[in-house]
Amino acid sequence: MAANRPSGPPPIITLLTDFGTQDAYVAAMKGVILGVNPRAVLVDLSHDLPPQDIRAGALILAGAAPYFPPGTIHLAVVDPGVGSSRRGLAAYGRGQFWVGPDNGLFHLIFTPGAELTIVSLENPAYFRPKVSATFHGRDIFAPVAAHLSLGVDLSRFGPIINDPVALAVPTPRFTPKTIQGEVIYVDRFGNLVSNLKAAALEAWLGGGDLRLKVGPLTIRGLARTYAEKAPGEFLALIGSHGYLEIACAQDSAARRLGAGVGLGLEAFKK
Amino acid sequence: MAANRPSGPPPIITLLTDFGTQDAYVAAMKGVILGVNPRAVLVDLSHDLPPQDIRAGALILAGAAPYFPPGTIHLAVVDPGVGSSRRGLAAYGRGQFWVGPDNGLFHLIFTPGAELTIVSLENPAYFRPKVSATFHGRDIFAPVAAHLSLGVDLSRFGPIINDPVALAVPTPRFTPKTIQGEVIYVDRFGNLVSNLKAAALEAWLGGGDLRLKVGPLTIRGLARTYAEKAPGEFLALIGSHGYLEIACAQDSAARRLGAGVGLGLEAFKK
Amino acid sequence: MAANRPSGPPPIITLLTDFGTQDAYVAAMKGVILGVNPRAVLVDLSHDLPPQDIRAGALILAGAAPYFPPGTIHLAVVDPGVGSSRRGLAAYGRGQFWVGPDNGLFHLIFTPGAELTIVSLENPAYFRPKVSATFHGRDIFAPVAAHLSLGVDLSRFGPIINDPVALAVPTPRFTPKTIQGEVIYVDRFGNLVSNLKAAALEAWLGGGDLRLKVGPLTIRGLARTYAEKAPGEFLALIGSHGYLEIACAQDSAARRLGAGVGLGLEAFKK
Repeated sequence: MAANRPSGPPPIITLLTDFGTQDAYVAAMKGVILGVNPRAVLVDLSHDLPPQDIRAGALILAGAAPYFPPGTIHLAVVDPGVGSSRRGLAAYGRGQFWVGPDNGLFHLIFTPGAELTIVSLENPAYFRPKVSATFHGRDIFAPVAAHLSLGVDLSRFGPIINDPVALAVPTPRFTPKTIQGEVIYVDRFGNLVSNLKAAALEAWLGGGDLRLKVGPLTIRGLARTYAEKAPGEFLALIGSHGYLEIACAQDSAARRLGAGVGLGLEAFKK
Repeated sequence: MAANRPSGPPPIITLLTDFGTQDAYVAAMKGVILGVNPRAVLVDLSHDLPPQDIRAGALILAGAAPYFPPGTIHLAVVDPGVGSSRRGLAAYGRGQFWVGPDNGLFHLIFTPGAELTIVSLENPAYFRPKVSATFHGRDIFAPVAAHLSLGVDLSRFGPIINDPVALAVPTPRFTPKTIQGEVIYVDRFGNLVSNLKAAALEAWLGGGDLRLKVGPLTIRGLARTYAEKAPGEFLALIGSHGYLEIACAQDSAARRLGAGVGLGLEAFKK
Repeated sequence: MAANRPSGPPPIITLLTDFGTQDAYVAAMKGVILGVNPRAVLVDLSHDLPPQDIRAGALILAGAAPYFPPGTIHLAVVDPGVGSSRRGLAAYGRGQFWVGPDNGLFHLIFTPGAELTIVSLENPAYFRPKVSATFHGRDIFAPVAAHLSLGVDLSRFGPIINDPVALAVPTPRFTPKTIQGEVIYVDRFGNLVSNLKAAALEAWLGGGDLRLKVGPLTIRGLARTYAEKAPGEFLALIGSHGYLEIACAQDSAARRLGAGVGLGLEAFKK
C-alpha cells in the first residue's frame, strides 16, 4: 500500500490538531514535513478544537476527510496521553491514509466492515532524530506522514495491529416509537449537532413525519435549509456533518437555549 | 475568458467565508477543489468574518483582492440565503475571477464602469454530484472555482446576467462644508474603518485641513502613521483598506470609545 | 548568499504577524508574494500574537524556525513603529533568511556567535511601486521576501548593518543556590513558559534535583510528560520551546493560578 508517487499530482497532507494558531506548534510540524517532502501540499482541517477533546476531533475528521481525493494523508493530533505508553499509528482505509495517536481519534474512520490496514509506529528511522516526550506531533507523526507522502509502504513503519483504541461516543437509543439522542458537538454558528445519523433517522422514520423535543422546544418536521425559516425560529435539519442538527435561523441555537454538548433530545414519529 | 492554463504558473484560488476555523467546512471546500485541480494554490483571505455579515465580506474582499495577480480566482461564501432561490454566480472583472452567492458580496467589485462578465451558475455538470441544501460553498462554488482554474470558460457555467444583487452600504453625505460618514467595519486592532474613501475625502478637502468629530472626540489633521502619536492618543488616517480610519496609538479605538459599526462621524474643512 | 534557485524544490516563505485572521492583511501580503514568485510555498507561523508584542513574536519565531529546512525565508511583521524611522532588514543566518522590521523581533536569532549577514532595506526596486506609511508588511517586506525566494542576493537590497536593535528580554539571575526567573509567555494551553533555558538549567542543576517555587506552589522535580501527572496536578517540565514551563495536567496553569507573563519563579537545588 504505497502512497502517492513522485510522478503523480503533489501529495496532500491535512492537519488536524487542538494546538490553536497562536503558538507555532502547527508550523513546526509543517516545517518538519516540508523538510522531508518539499512537494507536499499542506491543508489545515482545524487547529481550534477544544483542547484535548478527542471526540470533537473524531467528528470533524470524519466530516471533512471524505471530501479529499483518494490517497490524501490525514495527520491528526489530539493527544492528551503524549509521552505515556499510548501507541502511535499509521493506517490505510477508505482509500486514504491516517496518522496520529491511537486514542480513539480515528474511531469514526476505523468502522467495522471498512477495509483497513493499521500499523503501530515503532520504526525510529522515520522519526526525528531526537523525540521529545511532549510533542510527538512534530517528532513522530509529522515525519511519518511526510515519508508516507514519499511513497514509503505502511509496513515499514511498524507491525500490523488489529485492536485500535475505541472512542466512547454516546449512541442513540432506538425504540419503535422514540429515539433518545444527545448533542455531541456545537459548531461555530451555534448549531447543535446530535448523534443521530441521517441514514439511521430516515430509515426509522420510514417516510413518517418527525417531531422533536429538545429542552423546552418542540420542533415539527425536518427543514431542508436554514433560509426557509424566519430569523430567530428554531429548526431541525440534516447538517453538513451528516447528522441531525438543531439550528436557529440567523442566530445561535446554543446561545438561545443556553445548551451545548450533552443536551438530550427525543424524536417521535407522527 | 478562459482562466489559467496548465502550462502557466499554478492557478491561485483565494477563499473568504464566515465559517470560522473550528469546524472543517473550509477544509471540505479545499478537498473538493484539490480533487478537481491538484495544482491549485489555495490562499485564505479570511474565515473569521462576523457570521452572515455580507458587508464585512464585501469590504475585506475588495480590500485584499487587488494585491493578487491577474487571473486569481476569488471564492467567497457568506451565504445566509443558502438553499433559497438566491442565485450563484461566477464572474470575470478587474482581471480576476469571482465565484459565490449573488447576494451583494461582490458589490464593491461589480462597480459601474468596470468591464464585467457575470454568469448565473446553472450547469450541474460542474457541481458535486449531490448538492446539499445547506452547503453550496462545498457543493457548487468550490467545484466551479476549481473548474475555472482548469481553464473552463465562464460561458459553460450558465447564462450571462446583468442584474447582480446590490448591497446596502451606507454612503457618506457630502456638503460643501461637512461630510457625514459612519463606521462600517472594526478591524482586529480596534481601528474604526469609516465609509469615507481616501480619494473622495482628499478631493473634497482640496488641500484644506481636516477636522473630525467622532463621538466625544475632535481630531485635527490626517496622520500619516500610527507611530507619530504618543501611545493612547487618537488619530485619523487613511488605512490599508483605502478608507478614513479612526485609530488609537498602540491601543484599540473601538474599546477606548466603546463604539463600533454604525458610529457616526462628521468631517469639517478648516 | 543567494536563496533558492528555480531548479530546486519550491522555496518556502513563512509568515509571522500580529495581524490576526479576521482582516485580510495577511492575505494581501500573500497576494504580493505570489505576484512576484508564483512558485513560493507559503506557511503561516502565527498571526494571533498579542498585538504589538515583539517579545512573543521573537519567542515564537525562534521556537519554530529551526524545524524548517535550510534556505527557508522567514517573514515576520510585528511592527508598532511602522512609518517611523525604524529600519527594515533582511538577513541570512543559521542557514535561513529573515525579513522584517529592525525592532528586536529577530533578537533570539541574531545571537552572538551566529554567522550573520544583515542588510538594511533601502533599494526601492524591490518594494511595491507605492509604499504606504502604515503597511510595510505588504509594501516592503513581502516583495523583498519574494525576491529573495527568486534568488536575488542579499547585497542587492541595501547596505550591510552590524547594529540590529536588541530586545529587552528579562534574563534569569543565577546564584549557586537559586535561580530567579519569570514567565515570559503563556501558550494556548495555559502553560507558563519561563525564561529558563533547558541547557542552562540543567548545567546549573548538575544532576541535582529541582525544587521550584512559583506563586503559592512548590513543585518538586522535573516531569518528563504531561501524562505522568493526575488531571489538575501542577508540574514543571522542559516544553517544546526549549524553556522550563509550569503546566497543569489537562488544565490551564495560567487560569488556575490567575497568573501570566511577569510571574516570578524561583528554582532551588536539592
